[in-house]
Amino acid sequence: MTDTPTTDARSGAATLNAHKLVDAVRFDARGLVACIAQQHDTGEVLMMAWMNREAVEETLATGRVCYYSRSRQGLWRKGETSGQIQKLVELRLDCDGDTLLALVEQHGVACHTGRRNCFFRAMRDGELATIAEPLMDPEALYGSHQGHSHDGHSHG
Amino acid sequence: MTDTPTTDARSGAATLNAHKLVDAVRFDARGLVACIAQQHDTGEVLMMAWMNREAVEETLATGRVCYYSRSRQGLWRKGETSGQIQKLVELRLDCDGDTLLALVEQHGVACHTGRRNCFFRAMRDGELATIAEPLMDPEALYGSHQGHSHDGHSHG
Repeated sequence: MTDTPTTDARSGAATLNAHKLVDAVRFDARGLVACIAQQHDTGEVLMMAWMNREAVEETLATGRVCYYSRSRQGLWRKGETSGQIQKLVELRLDCDGDTLLALVEQHGVACHTGRRNCFFRAMRDGELATIAEPLMDPEALYGSHQGHSHDGHSHG
Repeated sequence: MTDTPTTDARSGAATLNAHKLVDAVRFDARGLVACIAQQHDTGEVLMMAWMNREAVEETLATGRVCYYSRSRQGLWRKGETSGQIQKLVELRLDCDGDTLLALVEQHGVACHTGRRNCFFRAMRDGELATIAEPLMDPEALYGSHQGHSHDGHSHG
């Protein structure tokens, strides 16, 4: 639709006149943008990882979330090893273009520890407490040789 | 409580034996950690910004969210200009220690554009669409001289 509002005068010149999300992204010096994955219906924040331009484009083209692995320096198709894929429901971009919000349908668990989401530690009563337990055995997700060769995540 | 589980053997050695959240954070080369702010009751993802160690400590000490402004190179007490403060409900840390999730009570709007949250642009029907309108006038938040001297956000 030609009348779809694609810009916001208050949000800064960098993104004016971008009709495609990827053209409005302000990738950092590494060529990366932060992406928050949120379960679309419950609102649960699942994880945060990084995307490069190719990962953003693949995610939009395939409807399956693809990140960029800083440690492997390559595309990280979430779930390609573990089966715990994220189907894309909607991809959103923030006001200054440096953070994406992916609304997803998470199959199984998002965290390489076997937990539903990665944010399972919290300050409670002055101590760092573990507030969620694994729903799946990490070895079942990745095998016993997983080695954690990742950005802090196994590349599941 | 001495029996509070504070570590997870699967989550990596970097965070073992940390009893305080700030000691479990893996700050990046700039000394920063990403922080996602989420409205605690609705699950709405409001914004993403950065914290340094001092900002994490102040946030936990005061119960009001304090970020670190990369452009101003100093603490950014959310709401100190605009009044749109974030009261901290709980601070969580992800599995590899490089992302925080702040559950907050957002007063008013989180976004410097006057919108409730920063993620108001989305790919719909192949175009980048604006999916939320401002609830407040940005000039009322910051005055007409705001100048956007920020990390993409006015320091409200």
